Order: sequence, then structure tokens, then C-alpha cells
Amino acid sequence: MRMYDLIMKKRNGGTLTKEELRFMISHYTDGHIPDYQMSAMMMAIFFRGMNEEETLQLTMAMAESGDMLDLSDINGIKVDKHSTGGVGDKTSLALTPMVAACGIPVAKMSGRGLGHTGGTIDKLESFPGFSTSISTEQFKRQVNEIGLAIMGQTKDLAPADKKLYALRDVTATVDNISLIASSIMSKKLASGADAIVLDVKTGSGAFMKKETDSFALAKEMVKIGNGAGRKTCAVISDMDQPLGNAVGNIIEVREAIDTLMGKGPDDFVELCLTLGAEMVVAGKKASDSDAAKEMLLQKIKTGEALNKLACFVKAQGGDPRYVYEPDRFRYANITDTVFSQNEGWVSHIDCDEIGICSLLLGGGRETKESEIDLSVGLYLHKKVGDHVNPKEPVVTFYASDEKKLNAAKERFQHAFHISESKPASSKLIKGIIYE
Amino acid sequence: MRMYDLIMKKRNGGTLTKEELRFMISHYTDGHIPDYQMSAMMMAIFFRGMNEEETLQLTMAMAESGDMLDLSDINGIKVDKHSTGGVGDKTSLALTPMVAACGIPVAKMSGRGLGHTGGTIDKLESFPGFSTSISTEQFKRQVNEIGLAIMGQTKDLAPADKKLYALRDVTATVDNISLIASSIMSKKLASGADAIVLDVKTGSGAFMKKETDSFALAKEMVKIGNGAGRKTCAVISDMDQPLGNAVGNIIEVREAIDTLMGKGPDDFVELCLTLGAEMVVAGKKASDSDAAKEMLLQKIKTGEALNKLACFVKAQGGDPRYVYEPDRFRYANITDTVFSQNEGWVSHIDCDEIGICSLLLGGGRETKESEIDLSVGLYLHKKVGDHVNPKEPVVTFYASDEKKLNAAKERFQHAFHISESKPASSKLIKGIIYE
Repeated sequence: MRMYDLIMKKRNGGTLTKEELRFMISHYTDGHIPDYQMSAMMMAIFFRGMNEEETLQLTMAMAESGDMLDLSDINGIKVDKHSTGGVGDKTSLALTPMVAACGIPVAKMSGRGLGHTGGTIDKLESFPGFSTSISTEQFKRQVNEIGLAIMGQTKDLAPADKKLYALRDVTATVDNISLIASSIMSKKLASGADAIVLDVKTGSGAFMKKETDSFALAKEMVKIGNGAGRKTCAVISDMDQPLGNAVGNIIEVREAIDTLMGKGPDDFVELCLTLGAEMVVAGKKASDSDAAKEMLLQKIKTGEALNKLACFVKAQGGDPRYVYEPDRFRYANITDTVFSQNEGWVSHIDCDEIGICSLLLGGGRETKESEIDLSVGLYLHKKVGDHVNPKEPVVTFYASDEKKLNAAKERFQHAFHISESKPASSKLIKGIIYE
Repeated sequence: MRMYDLIMKKRNGGTLTKEELRFMISHYTDGHIPDYQMSAMMMAIFFRGMNEEETLQLTMAMAESGDMLDLSDINGIKVDKHSTGGVGDKTSLALTPMVAACGIPVAKMSGRGLGHTGGTIDKLESFPGFSTSISTEQFKRQVNEIGLAIMGQTKDLAPADKKLYALRDVTATVDNISLIASSIMSKKLASGADAIVLDVKTGSGAFMKKETDSFALAKEMVKIGNGAGRKTCAVISDMDQPLGNAVGNIIEVREAIDTLMGKGPDDFVELCLTLGAEMVVAGKKASDSDAAKEMLLQKIKTGEALNKLACFVKAQGGDPRYVYEPDRFRYANITDTVFSQNEGWVSHIDCDEIGICSLLLGGGRETKESEIDLSVGLYLHKKVGDHVNPKEPVVTFYASDEKKLNAAKERFQHAFHISESKPASSKLIKGIIYE
């Protein structure tokens, strides 16, 4: 088999077989197929596409290019959750304790933030002492003991995907739905869960700006997951404005804790309940999503969800007192609130711009090597559709540096829009895909 | 400017500007743009195409990536000729002395053969002592003195094309007409001639199998040449069977000498006269092609063309006695003639297969490093449309090794077809393109 022939086949509209895709991925991973042939292949795939079977086989080949995590030592149906990422998306922090409190074993691998979107690991490190660098043994043992563990992605998780994504990133071959789906799903399949609930974002702050593209990506991923024998569904949720009110690291952790205390913002609570219900149903702890939502609300009401978070933080070396006494968290020194000048309705909050505000404050990474400041962030007092009176607070910034604060404030003006008429209302949950 | 943005632009159907193409070619040549980005770009061009202006600008950028040969020291209108290559194509050997004898200065760079098609330089080296490794100074002086010189391509002729072609060759991005045209024409433009006559082959033995593709390639190259200010035309000629009767190196040289002695095979003579007439008209030594053909025939009749070849061979260190006494050439030891078994008409001679017969005999290169045996080859006693009686000779092989002979004879059976009915006749010259 020669890579040249495979490129030619795909270029001419052919279908790659399972054997051909495995040959391609294994020889690319071990360095026998050079980058210049793979980038030509990726561009050919961009133009010719892949069918359902090709996409599944490519994903399986990438998943199996490194270690496949074996979670069979963990009792019960392991349910994983993945978000395509957005601004203010602290879902994992609140959702995983809620679900674990319902008796679903949650064994989750997470990543760090890059660019204007944050990462779960960075946020968790807001708890003094917390570490996600735990061994696979501890990871599995902890899930069996307390029902929840989150670790950083191991280096050998789908190495083919890592190498291929880096190549696609510099050759303008990222934005193909089959390739995006197989990249995400290869890591999920390698992570070993029995069931997967996907949160596919849509809107200005999402990778997929258009709703039709988000649905297409969701369908593709669900097909891969189910095709690989993992029960998979996808919730398509709005990312046309930041999720919740808090954007940053410590500030988002606090909002997640507030949520577990029953004081979360409406949109964030709705998303956690929707995703959580799918996880609880997939884990067979409830027969339908209404019953599952009721169960999740109960776990908040009784404090079991909050206790689960404390237990989890403690198990990974963090200080659980921060869970019960969130005022222990210290924001950056400079606090600055911006007030509205006119009356009106919030018509639009540009997600990417808000993400850049957080980045400018020092709360995000420009490159993989950047250090981030967990204590900075911003709090939106108003969301899209809210009425605003003159001199009402609009946003509060937490900054460690006047220059960075001013840069973020300047940028904020481009992000936040008030109009004279009330905007049409928009649903948070756009749909759920099961097959 | 970033290569990433240029790939994205072309991928999305945009048009690359002159500045962008120059940036791309110069930074690729100097190694700043990696192969993996360029191969993605080539695949994007394969799918999106290039317009006339892009193709011209890419060609100019590649031509100017190395030394541009300055032929202004040579008096008169310098006319170059280029063939897209085929089996039995010894045209340059006979054509250039004919044209030079008409007073057209011919300063030609040639290449070696690769795969199943031969190269002019290999054939010229059949003359003992002949060398194409001459300095540019000698090259120009010789053209001024005797009107004809042929040298190997200098290393620094369009280096961008060399690098890019090697990349396209392994990434399935060769067969795009704009890219093929720009590759050929970049070398022609860098070679410095005032006018260019192209011989674009079509048929089973040509790079372009289909006549419509050959015409399209011809048009594209003519547009580039004229767009770059060089008077350019293209003859589209048949390569559905080998040209002439001889295939090999020494054996083709002998056929070229026969032609200059007035004893050439009809098809080969017709092609030489057609291409030669275009060169003579482009060089303003005749007002139309009929007059030019008459002049060329005269140069054969008077022996001036043959003398020009002898003079040229001598100037480049070869033994001119071989020109006048071609029996001095020694074929390989083993001669084996195959006779027909049935009566009929030759219906088809597969060019590629005949080329492979020559390769199997040792007369061609499998890789750039292969040594070739100039003394082997084959002579077709019958061409397509010829009547064949039982026991008439069909082909004679000249081989240096029984094993190689048998391999070639075996292969020949797949190449040569006799049918019971006379095949439809086919024209050698399919058309001439001037703009």
C-alpha cells in the first residue's frame, strides 16, 4: 500500500477502506508518511468529504493510535461529557458533581484553555492544592470510591489526532465537519467511557457559528460514537452570548459553586440540567429526562451535589473549605464596574470579544506556553434581553493591572450592545440529537 | 503575508495576486515555506484551478526563481522547441540541424530520459565523445559560430519548478493543466529564447491521453508564452503509436540521420517539417509555412542539414564521422526479429508498452540514478494501418542479454495488435495553436 495511491484515490472521489485508513494513520503517527503527503490528503478530504463509514474508521484508527483507556475496573455505566468549547463555559465544574451525586461514575479527561476559551483544568486549579496530574490507577480508584475524578489528558491519548490536528491547523484544513468530528471523537473513544453526552455549541462564540453546521457536526459525532458502540447523544446549545454571568477562572468556579448551592444563573442551570439529564438517563439511573432533571434538582437541594464537589476537590489535593466558603477565593486587586448610560435592552453580547476581554486581563493563554492569572475576570450584570436603566451596572472587571484593565474595557465596548427595542428571544437549547 | 492565508484564499475559491504568488514561490524556494503547506496549496489549486493571469504569474515567478539565461549576445531571433515527450521521439536530433541550416539560431537546453520516454541528451551521447556539459559562454559562442548548440539544463534553471515538481510528484497533484503548463513554461522562459514552438503530444503514449486535454494544455502554454512576451505556438501531434520506426538511443540517432539524408519515415518527416516550418516562420526566415517547408526540404536535399549536424556534433566533442557513416554505430550483440503469424492490418501499437519494452532491454531509466545501455532498442517494421502478410517481419530487437530480450518480447505481445480489418486512418498533426 502506498500513501500516494490513497491521496490519488481520495482526490478522484474514491472511498478509503478501513485498511487504507489504518495504514495511513499508523504510518503517519510513526513518521513513515511525511507531513506533505498527509496535508495533501487532508485538502483532498476537504474537497471530497468522507462518508459515514470512512469517518468512523478514521476516528477508530486515531483513537487506537495510542493507549485506549480501560475503565472496566470501574463499576457501573461510565458516562463522559464533552463540550466543543465556549466563553463562560464552566459546565463540567457544576455538572459532574451533580451527576456523580446521582450515582453515575464520572471518569473525565479534560484539557487546558487556549485562545479566548477557558479550560476545565485551569479552573479546577483555582482550588489551592488541586492537581489533575494523577495516575490512571488513582483516577480509576477515585471514581470507584467517590464517583468522580478529572485528570489531564495523558500524552499518549490519540497521538495521531494530536499530530494531525497540528498539521491541519497550519494548512487550512481544519474546518471540515468529518475531520472535526473524528478529531474530537477519537479522544473520547480513547478515554474509555461507555456513553458520551456531547455539548455542541452554536453561535458567535462557538467554533461553529451557524446552527445548521452545529447540527451537522453533532449528527456526525453521534454517528461515530454509536458506530463505535458507545451510546452517544448531542445537545446543541447557544453560544451567541457567554454562558452564565462569570467569565474568568476563579470567578467561574464561584459561579459553579453558586449553582450547586441553588443560586446559579438561569441559562447555566438549564444547560446543566439538560446535559445532566442525558447523562443520568444514559447511566440508567432514571427512565426519562424529566425524572432525571427532578433527581438532579434534588441533589442540589439536599446539598449532596455540593458535598460531591468538596469530596472530589479533597481527593485530588485541593482545599474543600473553598467549596463551602467561596469567599475564601481572592479576586485580583482592581475592581472596576461599568454603568450603562442609556435606557434600553441588551441586544447582543459578542462572545469572542468577551473572551478577548478575559484574555487581555491575563485570564487566558495566547500560546500553549502562556502563564495565566486565575484571579482576573469579568462579571456580566446583564444578559441579552435584559432591560437596562441608566446608571445600572453592566459589567464588573477584576484586574491586576490598570493597563490590562483599560485594554479590556476598551474592547468591551465592541462586545456589548444596547438597543432601544427589546430583541427577539432566543432558546438556549436548540435541539438534542440521538442518532 | 502568511502562506496559511494564501492556502485558505485558494481553498475558498479566491484568486491569488502576482505579489502573493511571488511571495509563495520565493519563500518556498528558499525553504521558509514548508512542503506540507505547499502540498496543501497544490491540492487546493487542483480543485479550484487558476485563471490565466494566475497561471502566467506563477510561471514567471518560477522562471525567475533562478538564473534567467540571457541570450542577447546571440544574433537573430532565437527559437526554442519543446516536446511534452513520447516514445520514439527523436525530433530534436533531426529538427534542430534542419532549422539551423535555414539560418535560425538554435540555443537549446535539453533533459535526460526518465521512465519509458527517452531524452535528447542520452541520444546525443551515442556519438562517441559528445558532451552537453558545456559552459554558457561556449553555448552562446557556438550558436553564433555554427547556429546550433544543445546543453544540459543548468542546475539553477527554475529551481522552484524542480522543487515543486518533485513535491507534486509524490502528492498526487501533477495532473492539473495550469500546473503542468507553468512547470514546462517556467523552464522555457528561463532558457531565454525569443520564440517557442511546442510539440504537445496526444494519445496512449503521451502524458495527455485525450485530445481535448492536449489542446487545453497547448492553449494554456501558448497563453503563458505570449503573455510573457515570447512568440509561442503549439503543434498537437499524435503519440498513439511510437513516432517513426526506431525506439532506443543509438537506433533513434540513426533514424534521425536517415531523415537528414532524405530517407526518414513518413510520420517523423511530417512532424519535423511541421515543427520546423513554425520555427522558421517564427524566426522570420520564411513568410509562411509552405515556403518554410520547401526551404527545409531543400536543406535536406542539398545536404546542408546533415552537414549542420556533423558540425554541431564536432563542436561539442563528438565524432562527426558517425554522421556521414552511420554504420559505425554498433548495436547490441543479440539481434532477434519477430515475424507475423497471420495476415491482417496493424490496428494498434501501445506506446507506453513499447516504451516499457525499451526500458526492459536496458535502454531507459527506472530511476534518475539508473545507467542506460545506448546500444539496445527495437525497430518496428510495421506501423498502424500497414498491411501484414504471414511471416513478414514485425519487429527487430537489439539486446545485450537473453533474459532482458525475452522480457521485452513477452511485453511486446501486449503492445502490438493485428486485426482482420483495416483500421480507420488517423492524422499525425491534430492542430496548431497560435493564441
